[in-house]
Formats: sequence, C-alpha cells, structure tokens
Amino acid sequence: MVQLTDDLIEAFNALRIIPLATADKDGVPNVAPMGAKSIADPETILVMDNFMQKTVANIRENPKAAIYVWGEGVKGCFQIHGDVTYEDEGEQFEAFRKETLARMPHVPAKGMLVIKITDIYTCVAGPGAGNKIV
Amino acid sequence: MVQLTDDLIEAFNALRIIPLATADKDGVPNVAPMGAKSIADPETILVMDNFMQKTVANIRENPKAAIYVWGEGVKGCFQIHGDVTYEDEGEQFEAFRKETLARMPHVPAKGMLVIKITDIYTCVAGPGAGNKIV
Repeated sequence: MVQLTDDLIEAFNALRIIPLATADKDGVPNVAPMGAKSIADPETILVMDNFMQKTVANIRENPKAAIYVWGEGVKGCFQIHGDVTYEDEGEQFEAFRKETLARMPHVPAKGMLVIKITDIYTCVAGPGAGNKIV
Repeated sequence: MVQLTDDLIEAFNALRIIPLATADKDGVPNVAPMGAKSIADPETILVMDNFMQKTVANIRENPKAAIYVWGEGVKGCFQIHGDVTYEDEGEQFEAFRKETLARMPHVPAKGMLVIKITDIYTCVAGPGAGNKIV
C-alpha cells in the first residue's frame, strides 16, 4: 500500500492547480491543469471531470496518470503515479460533486478520475530528483 | 509547420516553471517541473537536462512530450505536443547551456530535449478546453 505522507497532503491541499499527465494507447503524452481535486484517503486522489477531452479519452484506453505536487509556498516537490478508474455515480462521487459545485457553481462536474496511488517520487531539484520515496 | 503564437511565446517566457509530461514505452505517464527552458524558434522548445531521470529514460524509448503553458499572471492556457530528440553537443546546445548556467550556475546542464512542436491546444477552462488551435 502506497500512502500519501502528511507533508504531501499539506502541499496538495495548499495548491490551487496541479498538472495531471496521461498518455494515449500509443504513448502520446498529455498534461492539463486540474483545479477540482481532492484527497479521498491517503491512497486515493480524486480529480473532477469538468472539461476533460484528451485526459478522459486517454484514461479510457490507458488507465494510468501522473501528477506533481509543487508550487510557490509549498514545501517539497512530489511526483505521484497511479492507476485510474472513471466514476460518475455512487456516494463518493456525489460527495465530491457537491464539494466541487460549492466552490465552482458553474462547472458540469460530470464524472471523476479515481487515482489509486502506485508510486511516489521526489522532484526536488538536485541529484536525487526523481528518486522513489514511497 | 506548427508555430507558437506571440501570446504563447509571451506566456512561456513569463513563467518560471512549466510541467513537462512524457510516457515510457508501456504508456506509463510522468510529469516533472522544468525551470531551464527556452524557445529556440517558433517551432522548437528546448528544455535543459539537469536532473532528469524518468523524463530522459522515457524519451529514449518513446520520443514524445507534452507541456502546458499556464500560470498566475499570464494570459490564456496552451497545451503543446511535440516530438523530442536529445542533444548534448553542437552550437545550439552550447548556447543554451551558457544561457542556463548564467541563470543557474550550479546545475550540470548535461544535455537538452529539443521539442519540435506538432500540435497546440487551448486549455482555458470551459467547454472549448482541449480544442486544437494550431
């Protein structure tokens, strides 16, 4: 079980936007800024599908995602890899949808990526950048 | 020929960090923050390899990259896809290496990704997010 650390959770929650990378079945990567994101539990990140195009097309044919957690005012730099499922119903989805719409009343909030974390790396600049930490 | 627009070039140069996504030969994506980046010409982006691990391993087996150009204080949101070669010698590399070391004297600046742009999309939030613009 790969779990987010307290430092990582604090940084994740402090950032307004995180970059989310996916790739299609031929390995063509894409990266998009995501604002509607939440930590469901220490092993699971949720990202709301508001206006996704390539991201959803990619995870439907290749259910893998990567993000990094870094930005002004946060400690450290973390890269997360995970396996993705797409969900648009159920208790967890309805709760996340409600939370998203409270912050962003005009988005469609039509589905979500459920990212089960498989690996965590550091991306702090220096010779150790990219090393696996969890 | 896909070319960067003036708006995009202005935004790219204003940002300190851009996220760069790659994927390995099995399609596992990765995304890392890149600070040493430059526009060589309107069709080509350079990114210095200082502490790359997964990024270089990925482009050696799958020479594709994606970035986005977005951040506080810049106009618009742009996603760029491109084909990548890795270079560590020649006039263009030496010039970019010199420019990088002037800003960041302690980095190794050991090679660079040369990204030839193939597609540009908008990532401004809204129903048009992800649409191809160039």
